[in-house]
Amino acid sequence: MEDLSFIPDIPSGPLDEYRNSASFNWKRLKLSLEGDIDLLKLKYKIWQTLENDPLFAHSHVMLTTDEEKRITQLQLKRINQYKFLTNETFRSNYSKKTRALMTINEAVNSLNPSVSVKMAIGIYLVSNALLSLGTVRHLKFYEATILNREILASIALTEIAHGSDAKLMRTTATYDPATKQFVIHTPDFEAAKCWVGNLGKTCTHSLLFAQLITPDGTNHGLHGFLVPVRDPATLEVYPGLIIGDMGEKIGVHGIDNGFIMFNHYRIPRENLLNRTADVTEDGVYESSFSDPSRILGAALENLSAGRVGIMQESCHSIASAVTIAVRYAASRRQFGERNREIPLIEYELHQWRLFGYVAAAVVFRLYIESFTNVYLKIVEKSNSGQRVDNLSEAVGEIHAMVSCSKPALTWTVLEAAQQCREACGGHGFLKCARLGDIRSNHEPTVTYEGDNNVLSQQAGNWLLRQYEAAVMGNEIDSPLGTITFLKDYATISKDVFTCKETSHLKTAQFITDTYKWLICWLLKQTHEKYEKEMAKGLSKFQAKIKSQVYRWKTLTRVYAEYLAIVFSVQSIAKKEKELQPVLYKLFYLYGLWSLDKHLVELYQGGYGVGDGLAKLLRDAVLELCGELKGEMVSVVDALAPTDFVLNSVLGKSDGNLYQNLQTAIFSNPDTFGRATWWRDAISRTPAKL
Amino acid sequence: MEDLSFIPDIPSGPLDEYRNSASFNWKRLKLSLEGDIDLLKLKYKIWQTLENDPLFAHSHVMLTTDEEKRITQLQLKRINQYKFLTNETFRSNYSKKTRALMTINEAVNSLNPSVSVKMAIGIYLVSNALLSLGTVRHLKFYEATILNREILASIALTEIAHGSDAKLMRTTATYDPATKQFVIHTPDFEAAKCWVGNLGKTCTHSLLFAQLITPDGTNHGLHGFLVPVRDPATLEVYPGLIIGDMGEKIGVHGIDNGFIMFNHYRIPRENLLNRTADVTEDGVYESSFSDPSRILGAALENLSAGRVGIMQESCHSIASAVTIAVRYAASRRQFGERNREIPLIEYELHQWRLFGYVAAAVVFRLYIESFTNVYLKIVEKSNSGQRVDNLSEAVGEIHAMVSCSKPALTWTVLEAAQQCREACGGHGFLKCARLGDIRSNHEPTVTYEGDNNVLSQQAGNWLLRQYEAAVMGNEIDSPLGTITFLKDYATISKDVFTCKETSHLKTAQFITDTYKWLICWLLKQTHEKYEKEMAKGLSKFQAKIKSQVYRWKTLTRVYAEYLAIVFSVQSIAKKEKELQPVLYKLFYLYGLWSLDKHLVELYQGGYGVGDGLAKLLRDAVLELCGELKGEMVSVVDALAPTDFVLNSVLGKSDGNLYQNLQTAIFSNPDTFGRATWWRDAISRTPAKL
Repeated sequence: MEDLSFIPDIPSGPLDEYRNSASFNWKRLKLSLEGDIDLLKLKYKIWQTLENDPLFAHSHVMLTTDEEKRITQLQLKRINQYKFLTNETFRSNYSKKTRALMTINEAVNSLNPSVSVKMAIGIYLVSNALLSLGTVRHLKFYEATILNREILASIALTEIAHGSDAKLMRTTATYDPATKQFVIHTPDFEAAKCWVGNLGKTCTHSLLFAQLITPDGTNHGLHGFLVPVRDPATLEVYPGLIIGDMGEKIGVHGIDNGFIMFNHYRIPRENLLNRTADVTEDGVYESSFSDPSRILGAALENLSAGRVGIMQESCHSIASAVTIAVRYAASRRQFGERNREIPLIEYELHQWRLFGYVAAAVVFRLYIESFTNVYLKIVEKSNSGQRVDNLSEAVGEIHAMVSCSKPALTWTVLEAAQQCREACGGHGFLKCARLGDIRSNHEPTVTYEGDNNVLSQQAGNWLLRQYEAAVMGNEIDSPLGTITFLKDYATISKDVFTCKETSHLKTAQFITDTYKWLICWLLKQTHEKYEKEMAKGLSKFQAKIKSQVYRWKTLTRVYAEYLAIVFSVQSIAKKEKELQPVLYKLFYLYGLWSLDKHLVELYQGGYGVGDGLAKLLRDAVLELCGELKGEMVSVVDALAPTDFVLNSVLGKSDGNLYQNLQTAIFSNPDTFGRATWWRDAISRTPAKL
Repeated sequence: MEDLSFIPDIPSGPLDEYRNSASFNWKRLKLSLEGDIDLLKLKYKIWQTLENDPLFAHSHVMLTTDEEKRITQLQLKRINQYKFLTNETFRSNYSKKTRALMTINEAVNSLNPSVSVKMAIGIYLVSNALLSLGTVRHLKFYEATILNREILASIALTEIAHGSDAKLMRTTATYDPATKQFVIHTPDFEAAKCWVGNLGKTCTHSLLFAQLITPDGTNHGLHGFLVPVRDPATLEVYPGLIIGDMGEKIGVHGIDNGFIMFNHYRIPRENLLNRTADVTEDGVYESSFSDPSRILGAALENLSAGRVGIMQESCHSIASAVTIAVRYAASRRQFGERNREIPLIEYELHQWRLFGYVAAAVVFRLYIESFTNVYLKIVEKSNSGQRVDNLSEAVGEIHAMVSCSKPALTWTVLEAAQQCREACGGHGFLKCARLGDIRSNHEPTVTYEGDNNVLSQQAGNWLLRQYEAAVMGNEIDSPLGTITFLKDYATISKDVFTCKETSHLKTAQFITDTYKWLICWLLKQTHEKYEKEMAKGLSKFQAKIKSQVYRWKTLTRVYAEYLAIVFSVQSIAKKEKELQPVLYKLFYLYGLWSLDKHLVELYQGGYGVGDGLAKLLRDAVLELCGELKGEMVSVVDALAPTDFVLNSVLGKSDGNLYQNLQTAIFSNPDTFGRATWWRDAISRTPAKL
């Protein structure tokens, strides 16, 4: 057994009772959820290093947005200096290096999401894109960004009037053979690049996506350019650019999101990222792809690492949220009998409100851990230029998986944060409970890197293609095997609910089989609706619009849940024996709690009739809540970061709820004392009553 | 026809197309939703007055919390000075006066919720409680609070360790006959009164609920006391008190929520609010009630005006949120065919995401407008001491209605604010879009004045009593008639779904009948489950705990939706003919969209079988979305406050989305220019690349 003494012990206290009832060792579960002891050690090293650095001390009061930006930038610089990514890891293979980078990102994200987002965009994603879109001539930028940390960059894609529809973007990069430069231009404010993280105040370079136009006037579609925007020595904006900060936001206040307008701004020809296409000195466009939209696809695909990163961060956000709520539920007593008040966690309604999200936190973590490994292997192969069987099909499948999983995960985590806040009642409304910040910092993930509603439609496109192939008896393009079961489409569709007791439902078999039935049924519904609308004479575009609600949208959600289920159950089977009972219970709870949301479709499609299905499924969910009650405090111990990182007055591991609350409230500098503006506050005719 | 020229016209612009398609005049609808032209005029008077007062100008940047508190207090004082409540209205009858106060509260809430909450608690609720709990000796406080605005007070009930369970509160008020004083004491921090609005920095008096103990040592339960806490001339805290501010919160930053600990703090005997019970000078307790828990009930009931106020404010919050999202949806274009981009509102998925909430905004408004009138009549009768038939039964029914409606409304509005933010994409994440603030300021309503999950259980208690009476053939105590249909319990329960086309579902009959079936079925399920748990030997307390999920909780939610449906449809029937078509469509949409969430129960209970029910219901929802598309911009015009009050860059009535965005972003003082901390931001080895 590995030595886990690097994980700090939890102090004895009021939560002991709920810890002693756990069937497993929480440190073993923690390691198991992380999947790699070196990465777990790296996380703790980062957390402990930052805890000892006063620059990372938590503020008791809300800072101005400008101050938040300043602190975030300083923290980013300091993290760069700590060199958590060692030169040795940097020189190791792609997967190992990337996992280390991802782990650093996750660890920082739990502490201050603004820092991790600035870092993820400005260092990891940009360098990743330079590597895969650029060529040897961009290597100096790559090294300056990720290895030497001399450059903080940004990625400029979205425009004021065009977010999701990248094809219609209007920023142009016109090649001028006379000077061998690209001339970048923004026609008007609506075409200003916007929401660009790091651009508002700090970055010196921007990876810009603009329409490439050759001297003959041909538009070759969006291409990537590396554009210097500020003098690195003074941070002054270069002439020809208008750069501004987007202003106050709902969350992630430390990120300086900016906008930029180009006024015939010139950059060297070499700053075109020319891996997939180039413009000769004379202005001739040369591409290794024939179709401009495929070039765009290839360019944007490289940014999907961002979506994987979002899912990892989401796993950390939900872990923090449920930790706070479960620890609070185990220490807060309210109502009872014979003057003995009982903790909130004893209430079935409270269990039901929270435990599904705890289960989701565990299942998501297992899913994303496995999925990331698969993903990195595919990218590695794709980047290496190796000939690999089915590579493009695998890329398609991965893209579909990411496109539906990022929405499903980020939405679930947003709901979880909200439910956890509500479950902590009024005290949960304190800023120092941290649930508000977890929520508002997580909030943009449902929009950025592909709006959830728009992004998930892409998974639907892929699923429908596979369905059509299956129905026609053709081969299904699913090298990862996530949808190969469609070949048994006809058999699966005949399945009906036959369980007679809850134990039949609490099985991986029942859960996966029911999901397979659901996917088949939803594919049929979606496909039929689409065909029906086409038959009415609608265009493909219009027919798709009319097939989203209750069909396409539900289908992609169900597929995402199915992926989490299949990947996590495979992962659990490989875990150590001691952990399997609790992991399977959490898995069953997640599976049945998720299926509960699709009961209508199960009834509508005739999978179940009458009382039995809903009753047994819901009884099983409540049974699992009861069975897991004694495990949950230790489960969240395994999910939680350190107390310093968690930074919640309600979620401290010692469980001394009211002492912690008193300390927090009493140490706030504004708690006591008369307001400085008391003269303005008094009534003009004060009544001594 | 009334002259509505006091409502400013809307400028012509990009939204004209969607306005011209409306079947009605939006000003007529606005008046109809308000219900009273004088109250509507009062609202506009307030909005226009405050718009012209620089103290109410919106800030472009986030203020510090201390500054938010200062501005809020100044705004409150200024509103007091404006005397929107005229002496004439103050002297008129209870209902008229209260409706005017409520209207002022709503109008201010739309602009700055912190001000309206401070005012609602510190002036309206306190004076209301003084009137109903106190006697003639408290009249001077009453007048100083509401008439002369010399006192700003607070209400201290919740303790650090006891929120929902008021009975176990530990702050004591022990009578000392020697000095004829009550000695108020807080045993420890866990018993500190907390979350008390206005207490942190500003109030001079607090309406305290404490356990009244007589010299013989008897605890007579919670009673109300008026306690001076700060010197009105200096705002210094009196000796014997520890008062502090709760610190930073998630929202409503302008409210100074505070806590207080009493150290044998003495107040005159006369400060006991003695309408229902008194202590003689010698220390003998004299009550007009025999049961201490009934005294508590009577005392707390007086605070339920707060819940009605929350529902009214919620109606305004959802109105603002959907206005912003619908106007954005009509002006923002994304994707399309043949290079013609179409507005988001043309997408069925977008309609479906938003229109249910627009319908809810209208239905809630109609419901709460009618309900408030009923409520005020009952309170008026109750306060007057008139003998009225069934008064106590009516009070019980009203309490049940409020207890389930406050949760249902506040949760729906919270979801609406979130959905509206997401529907505005990245730009919705801007603070100046205001959706974030609407959401975080609304957020505490699901917790305060009775945590939604706990509060709604009280409605369940009442419903189950009526159900038991109905089943036993006894009389149902429902003087307002909301649940008298239970007498036909047996017939209703046999009802099944027989509709063959969507037009059958788009009727008030179908919607109300289906809700009646649902309520009957859920009552049966809840009752059976409860009895089954009791039969197992569980206590009543334990049996209730085991009957919440999927039963009690769903039941109270369904009852709340049913109330909104019944009250609003009665209201629509009385509206002018021109408005009825659009109002009925909105009503059908709300009804069917709400029933969609209970399809599982309809299937589980055998009301529907197979494809038909879900398919027809969902088809009807989508049809209604399509039918309402051309009405929606005008519907939100009728719901919206003025542009100044709405204060959203995305929701301005002129529809000039991108110009408004540019103005907002460009006028933010921090948009342009290098950060003052640029020296800290640069890399130590800046790379000129």
